[in-house]
Order: sequence, then C-alpha cells, then structure tokens
Amino acid sequence: MTKWPRMNLAAGPVEVAERTRRDLAKPVLYHYDPAFKELFAHTTDLLKQVFRTDYDVVIMQGEAILGLEAAAASLIQPGDKVLNLVSGVFGKWFQMFIDKFGGETIEIAVGYDDAIDPEDVRKALHANPGVKYLSVVHSETPSGTRNPVAEIGAIAREFGVLTMVDTVSGLGGENLIPEEWGLDIAIAGPQKCLSGIPGLSLMSISPAAWEAMENHPTPLRGSFLSILDWKDAWIDNQRFPYTPSVSEMYALESTLTQVLEEGVERHVDRHQRVARACREGVKALGFELWPVREEIAASCVTAVKAPEGLSEEQIRDTMRDRYGVMISPGYGDLYGKLFRLGHMGVSAHPTTLAAQLAIFERSLKDLGHPVELGVGVGAAMAALDGWDDSAA
Amino acid sequence: MTKWPRMNLAAGPVEVAERTRRDLAKPVLYHYDPAFKELFAHTTDLLKQVFRTDYDVVIMQGEAILGLEAAAASLIQPGDKVLNLVSGVFGKWFQMFIDKFGGETIEIAVGYDDAIDPEDVRKALHANPGVKYLSVVHSETPSGTRNPVAEIGAIAREFGVLTMVDTVSGLGGENLIPEEWGLDIAIAGPQKCLSGIPGLSLMSISPAAWEAMENHPTPLRGSFLSILDWKDAWIDNQRFPYTPSVSEMYALESTLTQVLEEGVERHVDRHQRVARACREGVKALGFELWPVREEIAASCVTAVKAPEGLSEEQIRDTMRDRYGVMISPGYGDLYGKLFRLGHMGVSAHPTTLAAQLAIFERSLKDLGHPVELGVGVGAAMAALDGWDDSAA
Amino acid sequence: MTKWPRMNLAAGPVEVAERTRRDLAKPVLYHYDPAFKELFAHTTDLLKQVFRTDYDVVIMQGEAILGLEAAAASLIQPGDKVLNLVSGVFGKWFQMFIDKFGGETIEIAVGYDDAIDPEDVRKALHANPGVKYLSVVHSETPSGTRNPVAEIGAIAREFGVLTMVDTVSGLGGENLIPEEWGLDIAIAGPQKCLSGIPGLSLMSISPAAWEAMENHPTPLRGSFLSILDWKDAWIDNQRFPYTPSVSEMYALESTLTQVLEEGVERHVDRHQRVARACREGVKALGFELWPVREEIAASCVTAVKAPEGLSEEQIRDTMRDRYGVMISPGYGDLYGKLFRLGHMGVSAHPTTLAAQLAIFERSLKDLGHPVELGVGVGAAMAALDGWDDSAA
Amino acid sequence: MTKWPRMNLAAGPVEVAERTRRDLAKPVLYHYDPAFKELFAHTTDLLKQVFRTDYDVVIMQGEAILGLEAAAASLIQPGDKVLNLVSGVFGKWFQMFIDKFGGETIEIAVGYDDAIDPEDVRKALHANPGVKYLSVVHSETPSGTRNPVAEIGAIAREFGVLTMVDTVSGLGGENLIPEEWGLDIAIAGPQKCLSGIPGLSLMSISPAAWEAMENHPTPLRGSFLSILDWKDAWIDNQRFPYTPSVSEMYALESTLTQVLEEGVERHVDRHQRVARACREGVKALGFELWPVREEIAASCVTAVKAPEGLSEEQIRDTMRDRYGVMISPGYGDLYGKLFRLGHMGVSAHPTTLAAQLAIFERSLKDLGHPVELGVGVGAAMAALDGWDDSAA
Repeated sequence: MTKWPRMNLAAGPVEVAERTRRDLAKPVLYHYDPAFKELFAHTTDLLKQVFRTDYDVVIMQGEAILGLEAAAASLIQPGDKVLNLVSGVFGKWFQMFIDKFGGETIEIAVGYDDAIDPEDVRKALHANPGVKYLSVVHSETPSGTRNPVAEIGAIAREFGVLTMVDTVSGLGGENLIPEEWGLDIAIAGPQKCLSGIPGLSLMSISPAAWEAMENHPTPLRGSFLSILDWKDAWIDNQRFPYTPSVSEMYALESTLTQVLEEGVERHVDRHQRVARACREGVKALGFELWPVREEIAASCVTAVKAPEGLSEEQIRDTMRDRYGVMISPGYGDLYGKLFRLGHMGVSAHPTTLAAQLAIFERSLKDLGHPVELGVGVGAAMAALDGWDDSAA
Repeated sequence: MTKWPRMNLAAGPVEVAERTRRDLAKPVLYHYDPAFKELFAHTTDLLKQVFRTDYDVVIMQGEAILGLEAAAASLIQPGDKVLNLVSGVFGKWFQMFIDKFGGETIEIAVGYDDAIDPEDVRKALHANPGVKYLSVVHSETPSGTRNPVAEIGAIAREFGVLTMVDTVSGLGGENLIPEEWGLDIAIAGPQKCLSGIPGLSLMSISPAAWEAMENHPTPLRGSFLSILDWKDAWIDNQRFPYTPSVSEMYALESTLTQVLEEGVERHVDRHQRVARACREGVKALGFELWPVREEIAASCVTAVKAPEGLSEEQIRDTMRDRYGVMISPGYGDLYGKLFRLGHMGVSAHPTTLAAQLAIFERSLKDLGHPVELGVGVGAAMAALDGWDDSAA
Repeated sequence: MTKWPRMNLAAGPVEVAERTRRDLAKPVLYHYDPAFKELFAHTTDLLKQVFRTDYDVVIMQGEAILGLEAAAASLIQPGDKVLNLVSGVFGKWFQMFIDKFGGETIEIAVGYDDAIDPEDVRKALHANPGVKYLSVVHSETPSGTRNPVAEIGAIAREFGVLTMVDTVSGLGGENLIPEEWGLDIAIAGPQKCLSGIPGLSLMSISPAAWEAMENHPTPLRGSFLSILDWKDAWIDNQRFPYTPSVSEMYALESTLTQVLEEGVERHVDRHQRVARACREGVKALGFELWPVREEIAASCVTAVKAPEGLSEEQIRDTMRDRYGVMISPGYGDLYGKLFRLGHMGVSAHPTTLAAQLAIFERSLKDLGHPVELGVGVGAAMAALDGWDDSAA
Repeated sequence: MTKWPRMNLAAGPVEVAERTRRDLAKPVLYHYDPAFKELFAHTTDLLKQVFRTDYDVVIMQGEAILGLEAAAASLIQPGDKVLNLVSGVFGKWFQMFIDKFGGETIEIAVGYDDAIDPEDVRKALHANPGVKYLSVVHSETPSGTRNPVAEIGAIAREFGVLTMVDTVSGLGGENLIPEEWGLDIAIAGPQKCLSGIPGLSLMSISPAAWEAMENHPTPLRGSFLSILDWKDAWIDNQRFPYTPSVSEMYALESTLTQVLEEGVERHVDRHQRVARACREGVKALGFELWPVREEIAASCVTAVKAPEGLSEEQIRDTMRDRYGVMISPGYGDLYGKLFRLGHMGVSAHPTTLAAQLAIFERSLKDLGHPVELGVGVGAAMAALDGWDDSAA
C-alpha cells in the first residue's frame, strides 16, 4: 500500500484542520431532523459572513464545478452573448459550458501567465453591444494568477452585464465583496483557501441573477444542476430539493466558524503574506515565477516554471516519495511547464512554508541540481517580518 | 440549540457506524496523490463485490438522485419510448427526468401501497413495440415496498429493452444480481442499507448501457451529469473528470469493507429478518402495515398506516422530542398517511429494533392512545428466533 | 478476532459519549504548554461544580483505586483507629489499605445485600473512643446498593472523625454534597455514572483532611500515591508533580462539561428514574433484586439474583455473544450469585434500557427459561411516565 | 482562551499520530469484555516485540514515574545497597525512591552534561561489595544525553547486580536489548520516542527481577505500586488487579503496531539521523550543544545552551506565541541554562525539523539576535543525505 503523505500541499483538496475533521465525524442526522435543519440554516448564515454579502447564498451539494455548470445552465439561453475572460485553463474551460447551453462566446484571452486588463473588458463591451453575461476566473489555480475582479465587475455593472465569477480558490485567500464589486454569481469551494473538504459549491447570488434565472424561457428546475430548486426548496420553504451531504455540512459549518473566528480579512492577509514569502523563497533559489508580473500572483499556490535540465515531475516525485510532501504539477495545457507550491488554509503558515521549501531544496540536491541548502527558506522567513499568531 | 437525537431511525440518511466515521476523519489527500488513486481503485473493486457484478461500476460524486438523472440524461433522446413503472413516489418522480430529456413515457401504475406485476410489464412491452428503456424502483422507500426486479429485468431482456433500476435503498437490504437479473444501470446510495454517508451515487453499468450512451447522437460529456466522463477519465485513464469528494470516498471504502466482512448475503438476510420482526411488532400493537401484502414489504423501512384519532406527526414528535428517536413521516403524496420505522445498516439489529418499538409504544401511551406496553417489543423479539451475531 | 459488543452495559468502564471521544482525540499537548495548563485549571473548576463543593479538588492520574489507596496512605499512621463500614466487596477491600498503613480496623459489617444503619455508626463511635477515621462506600457497585452517606457523615462530624468516602460509582448517579454532608475525602471515577473514560481519580478534599495529611509524622510526598504532591505542585504552584495523562484530561473536561450542561441534579435524577424502571422490569419478569430492600438500590447498576436452574453466566454469554450486549457478573465473593444490568451515563436512558431488557428476555427464551417476551420492557416503560428529554 | 500550538516539539508528551488518536477514540469496552482481554493480550505481545525481549512485560496504568517508583518499591528493602548512577536530573531523582524504601545509596555522579563511564561502575562495584541493585537512566531527557547502558548492564551482570533502567525516553529512539544487555527492569513511556499518549508505564521484567520481588520479606502486593499484582492477576490469570485505562490501551496497541510496521531498528535509526541533523543545524547557527561530547547526545531532544544576552525563555515564548511552535526549557536544576528542541516519534522527520529550525531562526531575528536566516535549516538538511521515506 502506498504510504500516505505527511503534508498535502497540493492545489486542492488541501490539508484540513483537525477540528474540522473531528466535526466531520459527528453522528449522521436525517436531513429533516430539526437539529440538521438548524445546522444547515446556521451554516448558510456563516457563509454569508464569509462571503461578506447580504445576497442569498446557496450551497450546492457537489464539487465547485457543479456550481459553475449550474450557473451557466441556469442563465444562458441559446444565442446569449457571453464575454468569457480567459487567462488560464479554467477560464478556457468555461467556454465548454457556454457552448453546451447554446451561448455565443466572445473571448478576451491573454497568456496563461498573465491577467485580464479591465480596459480590454470595457473595450470589448463597447465593441459588442448586447452582451448579457461575463464570466471570469478570480483566482486561476492552474496558473497561480489572479484577475482584477473588482475592476472587471464594476465595468460589467456599468454595461448592465451579469457576472459569473469563479472564485473557487479565491474565497478566503483573495479579497472579495460581491455587492460592492458587482459580482452576480460567485462560486467558491471549501477545499481551497478555506481549508475545508471537497464536495460542495458555495455560491452567492444577486437579486439580478435570480431574476435572470426566473426569466429564462425554460427555467432550470428539477435537476441536480438547478440553482432555482434550492431557492424554491430551501430559501423559500426550508425544504431540501434532495438529500444533502449531511457530513460535509458538518465540516463546512466547522470550517466557516474557524474562518470567522480568525476574521475574514485577517485570513486573507495571512494567505497573502505567506504567498509573498513563498515567492521570495523560490526566487532566492534561482527559480522563475510562472506569472509574468508578481502583482498578479495568486494567494492559493505559487506557480514556478520548470527549470532547465530537470523535469518538474522528478522534483515532485522526490518530494513526495522521499519526504512525504505532496505538491501539484501544472494542469491541462500547463502540465510539464510548471509546478505549484501550495499554501492554502491551515497550510498558509510559516512553519509549513519552511518545511515545504526545505524539502524542495533538499529534493533539488538529491537530484543533483545546484542549490545552496537553506537559502530559499531563509529568504522566505525574511519576508515574514512582523508575523504574530497571537496578535488579535 | 436543538438537542441531537439519540437514534436516527429515519428513512435515510441513517445512522453510520463509528468505524466508518473514524475513517471519514482521515487526513484529506490531494486526489492525484498516489495514495488516493489507490484508494479510489480499491473502493471501486469493493463496490463491484457488493454489487455482485463484473460490470463496470461508477461512483458519481453526488447524492443518488444525481445518478438517476445522469442515467436518464445519458441514455434518453427525444422521442425515445420509456416504460416507467410506478408503484410509489420515486417511481413517479422519474417521469420528470424522462420528460426533461424528451422521452415518451409509457406508464404502468399501481397503488402506492402495491408492487408492479411482472406480467403487466410483459403485456405493456407487447402492446408497445419499440420501447427502448424501462425504469423501475427496486425498493420504494416512501412506501416501504419492493418491486420484483428479477422478474421484470428478465422480461425486459427478452424484449431487448435496457433497464434503469433505482436500488438506492435496495442495495444491501434486498437481493440484487445485475448480470443475472438483466439490470443495465443500477443506482444505489451509501446512506441507506449500507449505513454509509450520503453524497455519492453508486452505479453498475452493463456493456449495453455503455454502448447506448456512446451511440446517443449527442453523447453526454463535459457535465456533472455525465457518466461517460467517468468512463473516459477514470475507467480508461485513471484520471478524474473533476475533484472527487475525497473524504466521502474514505467513508465509502470503510462502509463497503464492513459489508463484505459480514458478507453481502448475510447482510441482506439480517435486514430482512429485522424488517419481518418489526412488522410483527407493529401488527401486535394493532397497527396496519401500509403495503397491501406483507410479501412486498421492503427491508429498509416499515411503513405503517397513520392510526385513527392520532396524527402520525404527534407520534413522531413525541418519539423525537421526549425520547430522542427520529423516524420518518410519509413523503410527498404520502405525507400524513403513514409513518416509517427505519431499520437500515447498523440499525438493522434486535437491540435497536427493541428500543424503537419500546419508544413507539411509550409515545403512544404519552399521547393517550390505548396500548399495552411491551406487546410490540415482545412480538418482534419472538420473531427473531435463532438470531446469533456470533454465527459465522 | 472477537467481535466488539454493540452495547457496553457493564459495571464500568461504561459507554462513553461520542462527543467525549472526539474530544479525547484532540492533538496531544505538552503538559506545560499554556493551553494545557489552562485546560487543567478549567477542568478543576468544572469538577468542583460537579462535586458541588468549594473544597479543593485533586485529579490523581490513575484509576479510582489510586485515590482510595492514596487517601489511606496519606492519612493513616500506625495505630490509628479506623471505623470501616462494610456492606459489600469494596467496603471490605478497603481494610487491606488500613492494614497496609498500620491502622487498627473497627468494622461494622452487614450482609452484602444490605446497607449500613447510621445508628450503628453512632453506637460504634460511642463504643470506640479515639476513632480517627471512618471509611465508607457510597455506592457499592458489586452489590448495586447505596449507603446513607449523608447521615453517616453527619454522625462522624459530631464525633470529630474524618471521613473517606468511596463514591466511585456514586458521583453523578447519587446525590452528594461534601461540605453539607461532612465528607472529608470523597473519591470518584469518571468511568461510571459520569460516562467518562477510566484512568483518573476525582477527589474532593476538606481543609481538615489537608491538615491531617500535613500533620502526619511522615507526610506522604514524592510518590505516585501522594495527594500532598498535588497540593504542593498544582494547587499552590500550577506545576505538575509528574506528567499528567493529557488525553484523559481532554475527555474529563468534555465529560464534566456535558454533565453541567444537563445539570448535576437532573443528571442524578435521570439515573435514579432509569434505575427504578429497570427494577420494575426485572421484577415483572419474576426475577429477584439482590438488595434486601429496594430503597437501598443504587443508581449505577441493578443487581439481580441468579435464578434457579440457570447460571448467570449463561445469561450473560447469550446476551453478549448472540446480541452484542455486555453486562457484568457478580464481583469477588458475589461471583455466580448475581448479575448486574448497567444504566450509567449515556446509557441511563429509556432507549438503552428497553434494548437491554428486551435482549435479556430474548436470551432467557433462547436458554429455555420461561418468559413472556415484552413483559419486562413493558413494566420498565410503564415506570417512566413523564420522561421528557426536551424538558428544560 | 489560549491558542493551541501548531507543533508540539516539547520533551514529552509529544505529538501523537492521527491514526493513534483515531484509535484512541474507539468505543470504550468493559475491561472484562472478551474483546478487551484479547486486545490487552495482543498489546502485550506487541510490546515484547518493541522491547525486543522474551522477558515478561507489564503495562502499569500510570505515567512512567509509576513504573520507576514501583520498581524501587518492589525490590528495595531497608539496608539494601543501591548503586545509583547520576548524570542528570532524573538520575538524581531516583535517589528519592531509594531513600523512601530504606535503601543505602552509593552514587556515581558526573556533570549533568556528561555520561557515566562504565569503568567507574566497575570500580564502584569492586569498591562496594554487596551492592544489590544498580539504577541508571538510559536517556536523560532533561540533559539530552545518553548513558552507555549496554556496557553498564554487562558489568552489573558480572557482579550479580540487578539493574533498574529508566529508558522512558529511550525506547524507540535508542537501541535497547534487555536480555543481551543485562537489563532486569526496563521502564519506558509511550509518550516519548514511541509517539504515544502519556499515562502508562511500559516495563520488561527479567526472571531474576521477579524472583527478587517474590523474595522481598514483605512482597509488595495489593497496591497501585505493585508489579507483582500484575503478575498474579494478568500474567498468571488473565485478570486485572484494577480497572485498566481502556482507551489508553487502544492508543498503545495502535502506537506499537505502527512502530513495528516501520521496524524497531529503522525507527531508532530515523530518530538518530534526525537528532544528528538537528545538532548540525544548531551548531551552524553558532549555538553550543549542552552535552560535553556529541557522541553522548540523545535521540529524543537536542539540548542547547542558552546563549549570552538572550534568555532561553524569550526564545521559547517567541516560538510559541508568534509561530505556534512549542519546545521545552531546562528542567529542575537545568532551568534557564538550556532549552530543548524535540524530535521524537512522528516529529522525527526532516519536514518537522526544518520547520522547527526555521522558526527558531526566525524567532532569534525577532528578538534582535544576529542570525543568518536559513543557515541552520540548510546545515540540518545537508546532514540528511540519503533520507528516503519510501525505502523498504
């Protein structure tokens, strides 16, 4: 049997807090037990706080890809013009959903190591009157990059365009304020920066988005893909459209409680500081960051270009096999071109970062790659001036 | 805060074994970690054994309703004739999926307290040449009844009709042999007789069913509803179409292991014996079973007619509030007409049955309903002659 | 491998709440970590509340027998007269400690199915001037009997005699108020009515008891048996005399919190009501209670006389092997003469009692003993009029 | 409430494996349940394998200090000459037990940063005929030093002297072979290198030691301190002298199983390699090791001299408060003179070591102490050439 890793520093699912997993293990309730309904309602409230929104939130009972497909399926009708912003694999992937539901894609694409320029969005919306929806990825996990969603959302709002925002790996690691930023449907996952377990889609839905779904000529109902089912059932009647994932809801309640105990802003700040330190460590070792500019680097993972003369697979395998540290390769088109150091959730901390970088260095040495042991760790630690777990 | 119940004897999700929940709490792995891929493959093998099949099995990452919708979505094309067998709420519900994907429904319906007669199936297939699919519910949880799936499957096979079988609450509690019985797609849930946690669809797929999906004019791919995605990704390439629910897979591996340690046949037999004893207890108390004939009563729950002069809600609320025992009401159209005593998974045991019936009796007394305390328990226990946990 | 039982209804260690066991599983802290010191202090406070005392409490790090031996070792010096009250195996056992530390035993003994008469205590103290200590068992688990500790304590106080009270299975199941009742050292265990895990001695210590320990010519210090070490180290200096059982302290904190959430008096009342119901069930089945008078029956277990023509071992083995229900035999001299039905902690509830009695009945039937199934359960349930988990 | 640390790298209790804690949380069994007796017997067998001995083993139900006191209490009679070897706090402490039981101490003492020279033992035994017992600490946790127990044991055997060996923090981290080395009573703790939970004493007992206990003029029986009670009860009759700590036994079974899965020798080797790497890291940062010679440095902790101009308390507090890393101060007389970096059990791994050293460096920087960040980590990693978790 394969030995389990000591540290899961992959691009998600990520390490989950002990406390969350103890809560996950609670006895399983019938979903209509009053105690479960209470827990579900409470968790919904917690989610609103983490999303920093007064919009309705919906917790769909499948991994975040379900929420993304559901948004497309619920909104897009044949012929709808959708402006799709592509700065990475997940951005491009979304076009599949636009196509599936008959939308007409207008694309703004940049290199998968770059971010969307909001001015290009404005130009495209000028050039293409009648665009109904805009889709954008907030945090492109495969590229370790971030799009300026606040600016993009504001422009979309100017043009009366509804936005669908994939913030699966953004929530908890990047700032996000749905109302202020003009985000109509934001879809997040618990298994990234929130440090929860995979299997749920966390969504905030604006009144305009609800209206659009209702006004669809054939509103999507009676389907696992339906968001409206959740409005009809849970939001309006405290019923469930189908059996929810009871245990996952326990974990989500626990996860969100912990995020709020820390404070959402502090949580985001912690991620950003560790990500910055990680980049310093990587650069000090002579490696190149994948993103073209450091200011677009995401909080979730640090994407690093595969070095000359050494396959990134060798690096990952050495870290995993010899030291039990699991990191992620590039994904899709990016496979082989980069690898990703993870620092999400409970792993966004100096201790874990130091361990990760030390094992990265140690593995390079094992592979005969020139490296001065300790240099990456030192640079990362130097970037963490003022860190203090005990600060309020 | 609402007090949690002591015993979850509802119609599902049901009580989950301690061991399963300890396994559920294991550290979360990245889905491409070799240890997780190994676990996923191993769990797939276990599932084949529990299904007693050599067919491919697919574990879709959402509650069993996902598997049901996926089957319909993957097979049915506009104009396809589907023979839908309706003996309860869930049988009727399936028509919604047939409609959604453009099928033409031919219905055989019986009372929701009755079971389908296989001869009626034969007649309908004779009368309706060109039927492509047949859909049937094996174990109608809302009614506590069982359909003769072995006979129905055999007839469908004679006519070259593909079958979609909802055995969500059947697997583990009723006998089931996909190849032998001619079941092309069988869909089960872990959260019923298997005593697992909700959130997954367990499916066995015949070669003919795969062929039909592939031959669909627009094969369903690139969707959370796609079964083919799992074939392309996992079965053919050991990849995942999207992030699986890692923790739920831990629980499923544990659940299936425990079922196999007991032995599938012994597991089914245990359910059937406890269900029979439960019926004896209920009858001894002067209550009427919901099913018209006892031989069609299911193993999962015992459906009992609401008595005169006492609402079933009062009974349930008293059991839950005063004694912490949660049972289920009727569902959908059956709400108010019956209530359901559960005995699935770890709860299919004399100890739990005795507690449930004793609290049922005690609650009747609290409500002023005439009852001789102990009579139901006694009758149930009398029906358990020869019970022996320690027998091989 | 032997199958684990479904229900542990033995005389202790007993079934432990899920929540306690989840807390038990928390990460292990260094005992001088500030978080652990805080937890230890907090648990001490909780224990005072459960003991309903303002006396100091000490948590010795070994099963309750350690506390009993420690009390004797710390107080008794050669030649000290100790009045030892014997109404059962544990009362008699204490004489071994008196002997070991050189005390002179004056014994009041009654049958092991009886309780001490306080007037006999008064007479003995009159007759034996100079008695320094009195030792008594509050709840004689092997006999399922209870001694009138309130009255005995009051008499001891009149005579200026210090009391050592074994309330190992009393705390949480019987009333107990150390100051009011004149109990100088009371020793309890977490693994009985409190539903905690074994491995700790819970002690309340009066100022007079501390003084006596200090005034001992060779005060017991520097030993695992020393109570004074805990005063010197923890109470006076927040230090530990040696490494405490960190995980057990997590469980104890959890256990005590749960008792206090329910309320100590309500907790005791729950035990007494279930014990009474159990006795009704047993009697209805034609069995005889072991205690000579029902008013001296304890809350922890119901001791039942072994019937004619059937060994109690057969009963226990059948219950354990065929149905997974573990109960206890007689202990020491009482082995073979009685068996004990347990109802402590989380098991002190109608659901568990019903299951236990039903399996008891069912096992009698398996063994060919005449029994009308359901009669015991019915009688027990009848005795539970007014039960309501949801009452404040 | 004080925040819990992220890493417990103290001198023990140490971090405990997840798997162990999941096993710890199993339902609590009655100690005479056949399943528990089986588990206890099995755990005893596992312990023999970990001790690499065919001697009897005894698992006393209290922290290792209980085993140490029990050994003294069971063997020493007034007037017995005991050669006590003192190279640290714990060695000196043992004299208290010798005194308590009336022994006459002959002491060989060295500095608390040094180890006993076996030749001095030989000389002392020559000079003091009639010595009956020799007591020695294998691994002096407070000093981070190790005594040459193999050589000492051999000399004692030559002189017919029985040995009592405190290997509380030695077992699993240092080599140890009781029969071969002439160790009559060896006492270990689960909460050090074995990575288990505290609360038990693990003992191996030679036939000669049993004989000595039996031949004591007042053999110690009927006491929590009695080792013979365990022989009489468990070894000879599969009974328990008192209620064992059921849950702790679950954890111990799990702990020992894991050690054996890894292999005892491999387990020791892992500890020694990490300890060596830790020393390299410390030295590279300009700190001085506490032990006078590196070859006497222990595997359990690396004791480091407190630097000039910086209190060790400041270092520890900064590591704990700002970064959640808990290490230990000096103990007893050594408080303030040194601090200790821990690397026991699951923490004996490059990942944890890297994190610990990086946080140590980072904390020095926070405190204004001159340090080149990364240098310690680098030196430690450099010392780990050839590390490979996946090696057989």
